[in-house]
Amino acid sequence: MSSKSSADIPDIVIGRLPLYLRSLRHLQDDRRRVTSSHELGERLEISSAQIRKDLSHFGGFGKQGTGYQVEFLIDRLEDVLHVNKEWLVAVVGAGNLGSAISHYRGFQDRGFRIAHLFDIHPAKIGMRLGGFVVLALDCMQATIRKDGVKIAMLAVPAQNAQTVADQLVAAGIKAILNYAPININVPPNVQIQYIDPVAHLQRMTYYLGD
Amino acid sequence: MSSKSSADIPDIVIGRLPLYLRSLRHLQDDRRRVTSSHELGERLEISSAQIRKDLSHFGGFGKQGTGYQVEFLIDRLEDVLHVNKEWLVAVVGAGNLGSAISHYRGFQDRGFRIAHLFDIHPAKIGMRLGGFVVLALDCMQATIRKDGVKIAMLAVPAQNAQTVADQLVAAGIKAILNYAPININVPPNVQIQYIDPVAHLQRMTYYLGD
Repeated sequence: MSSKSSADIPDIVIGRLPLYLRSLRHLQDDRRRVTSSHELGERLEISSAQIRKDLSHFGGFGKQGTGYQVEFLIDRLEDVLHVNKEWLVAVVGAGNLGSAISHYRGFQDRGFRIAHLFDIHPAKIGMRLGGFVVLALDCMQATIRKDGVKIAMLAVPAQNAQTVADQLVAAGIKAILNYAPININVPPNVQIQYIDPVAHLQRMTYYLGD
Repeated sequence: MSSKSSADIPDIVIGRLPLYLRSLRHLQDDRRRVTSSHELGERLEISSAQIRKDLSHFGGFGKQGTGYQVEFLIDRLEDVLHVNKEWLVAVVGAGNLGSAISHYRGFQDRGFRIAHLFDIHPAKIGMRLGGFVVLALDCMQATIRKDGVKIAMLAVPAQNAQTVADQLVAAGIKAILNYAPININVPPNVQIQYIDPVAHLQRMTYYLGD
């Protein structure tokens, strides 16, 4: 089975792989063993041709006409996305959002484990939240370096986001999921993704009209 | 100033408009009056040519060489996205996530106001959360109809998401922002967008390697 280097594959294709993986896991939960690009396409509202094309970047996942083996495809996609292991994640910001993130149980079985929760407010440090003790921002860099954490979720106010991101990058973080509604500059070798619910809402109101 | 109908403009272009608007609002907060596609491009890591092309779909926003008037462009984008008014939003699910959403102060000044917070658990109904009284799911449809709410945020467990979405659509909801990590089927005239932090994390681990 051939596979290409990441430079060959458009990022938009990579962005769809987690959606395929998520749907396949739901099929597996329903004890389904075989699926098709047609079925995945219906569930995800993506054309079956697009799905076949996307998956073909990573080699042959199924034989023409026989569909995809659910478990095999899950294993392969987990390999491709490097979530066949558990990544440690640091959460910065223990406000309402950081608290919700810490309580969310959906990370573990999809490749991620929250390892630390940091906050700058003295009143919060030492508190228990979602099974974590809130640590001081002062010890963030040392803790991240010590444990080799590569991924961080940023749940701090917009005005602090760039400063904290710079500290995270300096400590060795290679991927940041930013919940603050502001764009952040990171070096080219650091990944950044954004969660901004308002941007999604505004994308929809475009279609709703006046 | 000409403008095209929504059918003409690719959805991926529409998806970038909220990011432009967000960056322009930050420039405005910094009391900046003029900007350029180059500056916006640097902030957003989108090419200036792409930005000019995207904006040209909606008519001319600036003169060649003189840049964009920040306030004028904000007004026009708010018109295009229909966020020059305030949309009421219903939040379903008053767990940790629904609670964080209810406390989030970033909706108001970007076109949205949370109007209702619903939950199915008797113990939560009547509780105060982020300034809202939690209402029973039983009265969700009637309340949404009465107030003409068109937008909902779904913060319920994955296994309940489709059922609640069906109820929302039946009550007249036209746009759903789904936080449950599962794809949902809605009629073609209903917009749906997803917030799935794990999908973003997995998209980044692809590039992090083993």
